[in-house]
Amino acid sequence: MARPRGAPLGVFDSGLGGLTVVRALLDEVPGERIVYLGDTARVPYGTRSAETVIRYARGCARVLTDRGVKALVVACNTVSAVALDMLRAELDMPVIGVVEPGARAAVLAAEAVARARSEESDAPPPRIGVLGTQGTIASNAYPRAVQQRSTRFEVVGRAAPLLVPLVEEGWLDGEVPELAVQRYVEPLLAEGAGVLVLGCTHYPLLQPVVERVARRLAGRPVPVVDSATATARSVAELLEDGRIAARVPPREESHAERLQLLVTDLPGGFQRVAELFLGEHTPQAEQIDLNALPSDASVTASDAELCPG
Amino acid sequence: MARPRGAPLGVFDSGLGGLTVVRALLDEVPGERIVYLGDTARVPYGTRSAETVIRYARGCARVLTDRGVKALVVACNTVSAVALDMLRAELDMPVIGVVEPGARAAVLAAEAVARARSEESDAPPPRIGVLGTQGTIASNAYPRAVQQRSTRFEVVGRAAPLLVPLVEEGWLDGEVPELAVQRYVEPLLAEGAGVLVLGCTHYPLLQPVVERVARRLAGRPVPVVDSATATARSVAELLEDGRIAARVPPREESHAERLQLLVTDLPGGFQRVAELFLGEHTPQAEQIDLNALPSDASVTASDAELCPG
Repeated sequence: MARPRGAPLGVFDSGLGGLTVVRALLDEVPGERIVYLGDTARVPYGTRSAETVIRYARGCARVLTDRGVKALVVACNTVSAVALDMLRAELDMPVIGVVEPGARAAVLAAEAVARARSEESDAPPPRIGVLGTQGTIASNAYPRAVQQRSTRFEVVGRAAPLLVPLVEEGWLDGEVPELAVQRYVEPLLAEGAGVLVLGCTHYPLLQPVVERVARRLAGRPVPVVDSATATARSVAELLEDGRIAARVPPREESHAERLQLLVTDLPGGFQRVAELFLGEHTPQAEQIDLNALPSDASVTASDAELCPG
Repeated sequence: MARPRGAPLGVFDSGLGGLTVVRALLDEVPGERIVYLGDTARVPYGTRSAETVIRYARGCARVLTDRGVKALVVACNTVSAVALDMLRAELDMPVIGVVEPGARAAVLAAEAVARARSEESDAPPPRIGVLGTQGTIASNAYPRAVQQRSTRFEVVGRAAPLLVPLVEEGWLDGEVPELAVQRYVEPLLAEGAGVLVLGCTHYPLLQPVVERVARRLAGRPVPVVDSATATARSVAELLEDGRIAARVPPREESHAERLQLLVTDLPGGFQRVAELFLGEHTPQAEQIDLNALPSDASVTASDAELCPG
């Protein structure tokens, strides 16, 4: 069933990190409205089993399809890593994750590094180093996605569990972020990474630190790929190619007018963290109850046999 | 309904941190069997709203009461802070949280500090500084519990969101743990804290760092109260006072024989983290499905009117 071009984009994440993708989308596709769902009652997904992540992802997708979105952006690396195929199989609309666009951008960056190096020496091609949550790294989603683009570049990964709380603390500069980033980046560089991928939607806020630390350790600039920006660009292409971009020319609208913010829990400090990602024009969030859905419900009734119980 | 003395103790936490309480219990009440439930599918609770925490706590309590436990130990500061009264009202068995024992131990430590100080000068009584999750600190549970024991000591609190991932990374020593702990401890000492409380079940693993940092900053030793140990001692007293301690004399049993480990999710790396808390004799965990319960079910059928829907 084709949705109208004027329908909103649906974006979801386990929590608020996906707002970095929303921020990039507000710039990249200025004519689109966005409904964002953050599953703040069950965040984080990154430390959960694949089975649990799939169950949660189904619930989130259903909330957004019930609101009539025309395409689904999975702004969560963990869900993109383990549940994207399931969502694509179950939904009759475009589904875009953050891993494939990030992997594509990483391969382009690695090709540029390889070209630059080949001019100076016959060094081996750079490896692609991925920082992510435990779940994303364990899933091997980035190595698979890179392999589909190019077999030239090997991927090395590293789980970086301290970076999300650092971002949520707003501790984005100084000795502790530098040392924490160094703990994760140093072994990646030692394994030959010549390009780094921020494989978690929280990490773009630490991009300056990652670039600084990597440059210091490597003795030269190391390209750092931000999968949030890469995803927003892929969404823009997909809307144009699929002829489902909004026809209305962009108006001067504020974030609050273009963006609807849904969350499954509204803890204290929510607004402060949301504003870290979206700035001061962050709209008020509306709390919804995911438990009102059967917890194992599939996205469409016809798929009921896929998930008994 | 009185449970047999031979029934196990039920212990639950949002995740694995409560295993520090289990570890202390295995030493303090060596004749008792323990069923532990870690709600690893929904951890952490510390950043969720009180309403959500209460709903989750009900589900956890019900799993354990269904297994016939004789008393319930809430080894989670967040649940102890916001849901203990509800659990006590709904359950016909002793319910022990971690906040009251921690507050009691803190008051005793503060009295000792005050006595020592009064011998040297007429300094004001020390304040009690609490480190905890966002939810625990926001709940004001420690100030309330201290106030009930003594009105002599003021309480100052500080949310310390980096400490849990540091513990789960096993990053328990060196510059980053020191600096992270300093970030949280320094303002507490500046506000006059003369005693510190580790108000999160993960933090005992960082106790040496907290003691070292506090001593360096204060220029003298600062007592650090570990609420896990304090809770185990309270449980031992309660079992004796209530005449519900197991009558069987302690046998030489391993952890695996005395402890049953239930979790709601079994992500990769689970065993490594469990062993950080419990050591190498950690039993195998069994995964259970909390979604098999009605998500808003109250603990007993007769309380159904308390939680519609």
